[in-house]
Amino acid sequence: MTDFGLLSAVTASPEVEALTGDHAVLTALLDVESTWSAVLEDAGLVPAGAADAVAEAADPDLYDPASLARQAQGGGNPVIPLVTALKARVREIDPAAVKAVHASLTSQDVQDTALMLLAARVRAELLRELSRTTTALARLSEEHADTLCVGRSLGQHALPYTFGLKAAQWLQGLNSAGRRLGEVALPAQFGGAVGTLASATLLTAGSSVSPFALAQDHAARLGLATAHVPWHGDRQPVTVLGDALAGVLDAAGKIAGDVLFLTRPEVAELGEPTGAGRGVSSAMPQKQNPVLSVLLRSAALQGPTFASQLHLAAGLFNDERADGAWHSEWPALRSLLSLSLGAVLTLREMIEGLRVFPDAMRRNLDLTGPLLLSERVKAAVAPLLGDAGQEALQAVVDAALRASPEERADAYAQGLRAAVPAEALSDDALVELLDPAGYLGEAEEIRRRILDSLPDTPDSQDALDTQDEGATRD
Amino acid sequence: MTDFGLLSAVTASPEVEALTGDHAVLTALLDVESTWSAVLEDAGLVPAGAADAVAEAADPDLYDPASLARQAQGGGNPVIPLVTALKARVREIDPAAVKAVHASLTSQDVQDTALMLLAARVRAELLRELSRTTTALARLSEEHADTLCVGRSLGQHALPYTFGLKAAQWLQGLNSAGRRLGEVALPAQFGGAVGTLASATLLTAGSSVSPFALAQDHAARLGLATAHVPWHGDRQPVTVLGDALAGVLDAAGKIAGDVLFLTRPEVAELGEPTGAGRGVSSAMPQKQNPVLSVLLRSAALQGPTFASQLHLAAGLFNDERADGAWHSEWPALRSLLSLSLGAVLTLREMIEGLRVFPDAMRRNLDLTGPLLLSERVKAAVAPLLGDAGQEALQAVVDAALRASPEERADAYAQGLRAAVPAEALSDDALVELLDPAGYLGEAEEIRRRILDSLPDTPDSQDALDTQDEGATRD
Amino acid sequence: MTDFGLLSAVTASPEVEALTGDHAVLTALLDVESTWSAVLEDAGLVPAGAADAVAEAADPDLYDPASLARQAQGGGNPVIPLVTALKARVREIDPAAVKAVHASLTSQDVQDTALMLLAARVRAELLRELSRTTTALARLSEEHADTLCVGRSLGQHALPYTFGLKAAQWLQGLNSAGRRLGEVALPAQFGGAVGTLASATLLTAGSSVSPFALAQDHAARLGLATAHVPWHGDRQPVTVLGDALAGVLDAAGKIAGDVLFLTRPEVAELGEPTGAGRGVSSAMPQKQNPVLSVLLRSAALQGPTFASQLHLAAGLFNDERADGAWHSEWPALRSLLSLSLGAVLTLREMIEGLRVFPDAMRRNLDLTGPLLLSERVKAAVAPLLGDAGQEALQAVVDAALRASPEERADAYAQGLRAAVPAEALSDDALVELLDPAGYLGEAEEIRRRILDSLPDTPDSQDALDTQDEGATRD
Amino acid sequence: MTDFGLLSAVTASPEVEALTGDHAVLTALLDVESTWSAVLEDAGLVPAGAADAVAEAADPDLYDPASLARQAQGGGNPVIPLVTALKARVREIDPAAVKAVHASLTSQDVQDTALMLLAARVRAELLRELSRTTTALARLSEEHADTLCVGRSLGQHALPYTFGLKAAQWLQGLNSAGRRLGEVALPAQFGGAVGTLASATLLTAGSSVSPFALAQDHAARLGLATAHVPWHGDRQPVTVLGDALAGVLDAAGKIAGDVLFLTRPEVAELGEPTGAGRGVSSAMPQKQNPVLSVLLRSAALQGPTFASQLHLAAGLFNDERADGAWHSEWPALRSLLSLSLGAVLTLREMIEGLRVFPDAMRRNLDLTGPLLLSERVKAAVAPLLGDAGQEALQAVVDAALRASPEERADAYAQGLRAAVPAEALSDDALVELLDPAGYLGEAEEIRRRILDSLPDTPDSQDALDTQDEGATRD
Repeated sequence: MTDFGLLSAVTASPEVEALTGDHAVLTALLDVESTWSAVLEDAGLVPAGAADAVAEAADPDLYDPASLARQAQGGGNPVIPLVTALKARVREIDPAAVKAVHASLTSQDVQDTALMLLAARVRAELLRELSRTTTALARLSEEHADTLCVGRSLGQHALPYTFGLKAAQWLQGLNSAGRRLGEVALPAQFGGAVGTLASATLLTAGSSVSPFALAQDHAARLGLATAHVPWHGDRQPVTVLGDALAGVLDAAGKIAGDVLFLTRPEVAELGEPTGAGRGVSSAMPQKQNPVLSVLLRSAALQGPTFASQLHLAAGLFNDERADGAWHSEWPALRSLLSLSLGAVLTLREMIEGLRVFPDAMRRNLDLTGPLLLSERVKAAVAPLLGDAGQEALQAVVDAALRASPEERADAYAQGLRAAVPAEALSDDALVELLDPAGYLGEAEEIRRRILDSLPDTPDSQDALDTQDEGATRD
Repeated sequence: MTDFGLLSAVTASPEVEALTGDHAVLTALLDVESTWSAVLEDAGLVPAGAADAVAEAADPDLYDPASLARQAQGGGNPVIPLVTALKARVREIDPAAVKAVHASLTSQDVQDTALMLLAARVRAELLRELSRTTTALARLSEEHADTLCVGRSLGQHALPYTFGLKAAQWLQGLNSAGRRLGEVALPAQFGGAVGTLASATLLTAGSSVSPFALAQDHAARLGLATAHVPWHGDRQPVTVLGDALAGVLDAAGKIAGDVLFLTRPEVAELGEPTGAGRGVSSAMPQKQNPVLSVLLRSAALQGPTFASQLHLAAGLFNDERADGAWHSEWPALRSLLSLSLGAVLTLREMIEGLRVFPDAMRRNLDLTGPLLLSERVKAAVAPLLGDAGQEALQAVVDAALRASPEERADAYAQGLRAAVPAEALSDDALVELLDPAGYLGEAEEIRRRILDSLPDTPDSQDALDTQDEGATRD
Repeated sequence: MTDFGLLSAVTASPEVEALTGDHAVLTALLDVESTWSAVLEDAGLVPAGAADAVAEAADPDLYDPASLARQAQGGGNPVIPLVTALKARVREIDPAAVKAVHASLTSQDVQDTALMLLAARVRAELLRELSRTTTALARLSEEHADTLCVGRSLGQHALPYTFGLKAAQWLQGLNSAGRRLGEVALPAQFGGAVGTLASATLLTAGSSVSPFALAQDHAARLGLATAHVPWHGDRQPVTVLGDALAGVLDAAGKIAGDVLFLTRPEVAELGEPTGAGRGVSSAMPQKQNPVLSVLLRSAALQGPTFASQLHLAAGLFNDERADGAWHSEWPALRSLLSLSLGAVLTLREMIEGLRVFPDAMRRNLDLTGPLLLSERVKAAVAPLLGDAGQEALQAVVDAALRASPEERADAYAQGLRAAVPAEALSDDALVELLDPAGYLGEAEEIRRRILDSLPDTPDSQDALDTQDEGATRD
Repeated sequence: MTDFGLLSAVTASPEVEALTGDHAVLTALLDVESTWSAVLEDAGLVPAGAADAVAEAADPDLYDPASLARQAQGGGNPVIPLVTALKARVREIDPAAVKAVHASLTSQDVQDTALMLLAARVRAELLRELSRTTTALARLSEEHADTLCVGRSLGQHALPYTFGLKAAQWLQGLNSAGRRLGEVALPAQFGGAVGTLASATLLTAGSSVSPFALAQDHAARLGLATAHVPWHGDRQPVTVLGDALAGVLDAAGKIAGDVLFLTRPEVAELGEPTGAGRGVSSAMPQKQNPVLSVLLRSAALQGPTFASQLHLAAGLFNDERADGAWHSEWPALRSLLSLSLGAVLTLREMIEGLRVFPDAMRRNLDLTGPLLLSERVKAAVAPLLGDAGQEALQAVVDAALRASPEERADAYAQGLRAAVPAEALSDDALVELLDPAGYLGEAEEIRRRILDSLPDTPDSQDALDTQDEGATRD
C-alpha cells in the first residue's frame, strides 16, 4: 500500500520521509548486512575484499522496495527476498564475497537490528528537535515570568498563575520525556535461528573470535548497544522504546490541548504562528485555524494505541520466534517513530512562533478576579473578625456567587469591604490583599527549578553520547 | 512517509495497493469533486459544459500525492490544496467552469464522502473474496463431514468432533462478519462548514432544487447511502464501519490461530498450501512455515486497536468539526481497510489450498481416546452397576489418570472392562460405547444448519445490491 | 478485589450496583441454572418438582460471591464452584432434584448466557434512560430553536448556528447509538463442552424433544434471542454488543466535550445543574465544577479500550473454547455495561438540568460577528461591484483581520460600507446582510428532521419489545 | 459497583484484595492525610497533639467505602467527602486539631499521593514474588541445563535447544521487567490547587520551613520519592509506572503462552502443578486444565489496553488539572496493579510446581530429528563432496521432505549416508554429526550469563531499598 501521507498530514514532511519511510527501512536493512560483512572480514572469517563487494552491492537505490514488500509475503519478512537479491548482486561483483553475506545470521537478527538502527537515527533527530523546542520554551518562560494569567482546573478558574510557569511546565513534560527517550537502550540483535548462536559457533570454530565478540563489534559499528544475551523472545527493548515514544507524544499532546483552548476566540490568550500557508480554510477566508495544534493532537491521540500494540506483541510472543506477534510489531513501531518525529517538528514550529497576549490573559483572570483569592482572604481576614469570621466571609462569597457572572467580582470586593471594618483593614490593604500577583505561592521558584534542570548544552549531545558508549543491556 | 509495505507484508499486494493506496484516496477525492460538478450542472446551477471540464481536470494522474500530502499540513487536510490545484487546471480548460468546483462544499464534505467511497470500493472486493472463501470452506466442510478429530477446550482434549464442523464454524464466523459488513450504511456527507448547508442555500436560492436534493443525487451517483441530515459531528458511520472491519479481522484471526496450532509438527492435522515462494526460511532449508496464518495473525492483532482509535475520535469529536480527533480517524480507517483486504486475500489463498490430514486427526484423537467418552460411559453404564455405579466408574477414570499418558487410554478401557460384568455389557457393546464416532451429538445437524445459511449465489452480489439502493440512514 | 467504586465515581450509583455488581452477576448465573431446570422439567426429562427445588436453592443471598470468586481460580470460571454449591443445597432440599442441576450444560453455556442476561437487563435500563434524555434534549431543542450561537470548527468561529440545532444533533447521536444498541441480538448459549450438544443428545435420547428445542425454550424464558447454532467459538454476539455500548459512550462523550467547553467562564454559554453536592471543590469555596461532564468524559475515554479488548479476545479465540481470551472478555464486558449505565444516568441528570444562557451565546457570536458572513457577502455583493468585486471584498476582509480582535468586527462592517456604494446597497440592506440570523441555511429543517425521527413513545418500549420476540440469530 | 472478582478469577485472591481493594485505597488516602498532619505538627504549624487526634480518626474501619464512592460523584473524587468525614471525626476528638487536616492540600495532592503509596505497597509485594519466581526458574534452569528439546520459530521446529535455556530466558524476561519496575520513581504529589503551592505559602509564612521542606518530609515518611516540582499536569510518573506494570504482565504472558502450548496433550513437554482444586472441569472428569496459564493469559491480554489508557489520559491532560482525563487514570492504574499482582502470584504457583517431561521433549525433538541439523551438515560435509557438494546435500533434504512426516527423519539420515562416501565420513562421525546435543551453539554460555545476572540476594531487598532513599525525580 503506497502511503505518501495524504491521510496523515502530521507525518507528511521531508524529514519524516527521509528518516522513517520505506527507503530508510531499506537503507537500515542493508547497513546491517554490509556492516556485518565488514565485521566478518576484520575477524578473518571471510575472504579479504568481501566487505567492499558487499558494501558496493548494499546501495539502497539498487533495490525496489515495493517489489521486495510483495516478495516479503513469501516468508513473512522483507529480509528473505532482500538477502536473495543482495547475494545476486554481490555474486556479480565478486563471487567469493557471497559467503560474507548474511553468514550465520537469521532474518530476525537483521530485522530487529535494522529497526533499532532506524530508531537510533530517528531518536537523534527527535532529541535535537526537542532540545530546540525546550530552548524556545525556556525563552518564553523567561519573557513571561511575570505575565499573570489564571490557573484552571476541571475547566474552571482556580487560582492566579503565570504564563512563565505554564511554559516551564510544558518544558518540564517535554524534557522528562526526551530524557527518558535518550536513556532507552537500543540493542542490536544477534542470536541466529533460535537464539543459541549455533550457526555462528560453526562460523567461528577454529578462529580466535567468539560469536559474542562479533556481536559486540557489530553493535559498536552501528552505534547500537550490545545485548549481553539475544533478546529474540524478550521484547522489552521494543516495548520500552515504544513507551518512551508514546511519552513524547503525550507531552506534545498536553501542550496542544492547552494551545487549542487558549487560541479560541473567546479566550485568545495565545496565537499560533501566522506562517505562509498555515491555518487556511477551504471555504472561509476570515478563518485562521490553529492547525499545528490540530495536527499535534491528531498525533497524540494515536500514540497510546500503537504503544499498546507493542505490549500486546510482547505478551503474545510465543516460542523462540513468534508466529504473527513479531510481525505486528513493525508497523506499530514505525508509526510511533514517524508520528513522534512529525509531532516534534510541528511542535517546534508552533512554540518558536507562538504569539502570547498578556492583555487577554489579564482580562480572563479578571473575569473571576478577587474571588480567586477567597482562600487567601479567609486566612488573612477571618482572625480580624473574631469567632464568626469564617461564617461572615463565606456569606460574602455566597452572595457574590448569586450575582450575575459579570457583576460577581465587584460584588465580592464590595461585600468584603462592607464586612470588614476599615480600621481592621484599610482600603489599601484590601486592594493589596485582592491583588492576584500577590498570591502566586512558589510559582517563581518552581519555574526556576524547572529551567535550572535543563542541560546547559543547546543540543542533546550528552544523551546521544551516552547511547554510543555501547552500554550493555541485561 | 512513503510506505510501500516493507514492514507490513500482509498488505503488500497489488489489490490492496490499488484499492487503498494514496492513489486510490486521491482518485476518490477527485471523484467526489467531479461528481458534485455533474450534480450541479444537471441542476442547472452552473454553466453547461462545466462538468465535462471538471471531469477532464479530475484525472488523478495529473496530481502528485506526495506534494499534496505536504501541502495538507497547511490546513490539516488534503482537500484544501487539492481544490486549489483542481481549480487551476479547470481554469486552463474552461474558466467559466471554475465556479462548478467545490461550490458550497466544505473540505469535510469531500474528505468524509471520499473515505466512504474508498470504503465502498474496498467493501465490494472484500465481500467478493469472503464469498469465495466461504465457498471453499463449505466444500471443505462437506468433504470432511465425517472426518473425526478431537474437540479442544483450554488447550486440552474435550470431546470427539469432526473437521467438517470445524470448517463450518470458521465459515459461520466469516459469513456473519461479512453480512454485518455488507449491512453497514456508507453515507455521503454534505453539510457545509458547520452542517447547516448555509452556502448551499445561497447556491440554490431561486432554483427549483433544494440542498437536500443535491445531496441525494450526489450520493446516488457515487453509489453511497443518503444521510437524511449531515453527520458532521456524529461519527457513527465511521465507527460502525470500523467495528465491522474489525469483525472481519477477528474472524480471520480465529481461523489463523487454529491453523497455526494444527500445522505444528507435533499436531500436523493441517498443512498450508505449498505454493511457490510461500513459507520459505532465510536460513533453514528444511523448514516450511505457515506464513499465510502468520500474516493473518499479524493483521488480526492490529484490528482492535485501529477500531478503538475510531471510537476515541468519535467520543472526542468536539464542536461542529473536531480539532484533531477528526484528523486521527483517517489513517486508522485506511489501516482497517487495507488490513482487512490483505487479510481476506491471504485467507482465501490459505483456505483454497488447505491440506487436511485425517490420519493425524485420528491419531491425536486416540491420544486421549476412550477417556473422551467417560461422560457417555457414565450415563450408559452407571445404571447397570447399581447404587455404587457412579463411584466405581470414577475410580476407573482416576486409575487411568494415574497411568502414563501413553498408557492412559488402554488403562481406561481395561479398567472399564474389569469393572463391568460382561453379562451386563458385552465386549462388542463396550467397543461401540467407546467409539468416538458415536458421540458426536448434533455435530452434523449444526454443520448442516450453518451451510444452509449461506446464500445460494456464489458471490456477494446480493449484499452489494442492498448497499446501492440508496438506503437512507438516520 | 473488592471494588465499591471509590476510584470510579461515574459508576458509583445504586442503579449501576444493582444491575452490574457481582450480586447481579451471581443472580444471572443462578437464573440461568434454575430456568434450565424448569425447561428440563417441562420437557419431562427430570423428576417433577425438581425445578421448584432448584429455584428455592438458587437464591443469590445463599451464596458468598467473594468466596466463589476465589474458588473460581480452580477452574478459571465461577460456574464450577457455583454448581457444586448449588447441587449441595438442592440435595438438602430434594436429593432427586440434583440431576436437574446443570444437566448437559457446560460452564461456558452458563457463563455466556448469564452475561447476555446481565446485558439484557442493563440494556433495558439504558434504553429507558436514553429515552428520557432524548426527550429532554428534544424539549431543549424546541425551546432554543431560534437561539443564535456560533458554529465552531477546529476550535474557531465558522458560521452562525442555533443552540436548538446543537441540542438536536446531540439527540441524533444518542438516538442512533440507542437504536443500534436496541437492535443487538443477545443470544443464549447452548452447546455443551465443545459445541456439539453431545451430552444433551444423551439427555434427550428417547424423548420427544431435541436439544434445539430445549435451547429455544431456555432462551425464550430468559427473554434472550435463540442462536440457531452454538456460538462457542464465534464471539460476534459479544463484540457487537461491546461495539454498541462503546457507541453509547461515544455519543455521551461528544456531548460532555461540548459542555465542558461551553461551561468555561470565558464562554459561559451553558451551566450544569446546580444540584446539592454537585460540583464542589475541596479547597475553593467559589468554584463550581462541571462535574457531571467531567464524569462523563472519564467514562467516554474508557469505552474504546474495553471494546477493543473484546475484539482482541474474539480474534484470539482458539480451539472450541479459548485458553485465556475467553476469560479476558468478562471484566471488559462488565466494565462497558457499568460505564455505559453510569454515563447515561449522569447524562440524563445533566441534560434535564442544563442551564442555557442565550445572552452569552450572542455575545460570543458577536465576537467575530459580521466576519462570519463574509461568504454570504461575497455572493451577494461581488456582482454589484463589477469585475474587481471579489478582490475588493477580500481586501476588506484582510484589512479587518489586521485589526485587533476587539475591533475586527467593526472594522469589517465599516470597510464594507466604504467599499460598496450606498446606491448599490442601502444601509438597511447591509445591516440585513450582516445579520447572522439570516444565514442559518437549513438549520431549522435539519433540526426538524432529527426531532421527527424520534419515536413517539416516551420510552423505549418498542425497542424492548423487539428484543423479546426471540429473534433468531444466525 | 461491587466487584469481588467473580468475573476476574486471576485477581480474586486475598493478597490482591488486601493490597489493591477499595479498603486498601481508603487506607492509603487516610495514611496520606494523617502523615501530613504529623508533618505539620513537627514543623510547628499546627497545635501539638493534633497529629495524634488525626491518626486516631484516620482509621479506615470508621468509614464506609461504598458510601464515600457515591458521595464522590459530587466533586468527582473520593477525597472531598473523605476529608469532610475525617474532619467531623477529628472535631469530636479534639476540635483544635481540625486545622491540621488537609491544611493547604488540594484533593489532587491526596489522590495522586495515595495512588503512588498504593503502588509502592503493591510493588514491594510484586518484587518479592518475582524474586521467588526467578529463584524457582533458576533452579529449573540448572536442573535442565542439559535437557534437550526443540527450538521453535513461527510454530515450526527450527534447531536443537535446551529446556534449561528456555527457563533462563523466561527468567531473563521477568527479571528485566522486575528491575524496570523497581527503578520507577514513585513521587508524592504536593502542589495545591494549581501547582503553585499558594496555600502552603500562607501556611508556612513566618515559619522557618518552606513548602518544599514539608513536601520532602511527607514523601520521606510515606516511603515515596520527592518530586522537585509538582507534577500536577505532567503525568509521566503515572505512565512510566503503568508501562512497567504492563512489562511485568507481558513477561508473564510470554511464559503462559509457551506453557499453554507445551502442556497440550500432543506436546506434553510440561505439566502444570496438580494442586488441590486446580484445573477442574465442570463436566469432564478426565480433563486437567492448565488453569494457571489460562488465568495468566487472561491477565496479560488486558495489560496493554490499561497502559494505553494511562497514556491517553496523559496526552489529554488539559489545564492545570484535567477535566476527565485525570479521573480516567485511577481505575486503569488500579487494574494494572491488581492484574500484575494476581498474575505474579499465579505465576509463582505455576513455576514452583511446574512438571517437566524430558522424554516428551526428546520425542518431539526427534520428530524432525536430523533434519534440524541440515545447516550443520552442509557446513561440515559439503567440502568433502567437492564442487557439487551443496547441490547434492540440498537434494537429500528435498527428498526427505517428500517423505511422510513419520519417515522423514530416517529418510534424511539414510539419504545422507548414501550421498557421502564412508571413507570421507565414517558411520560414527555421521551419527555424531547428527546428534542434536552437539549443535547447541552457545546455549550454555547464554544460560550462564542470564543466571549470573540475577542478584545474589534471594529477595528483592536491594530494589526496595533503592526506592526508599528518597531519590528525587525531575
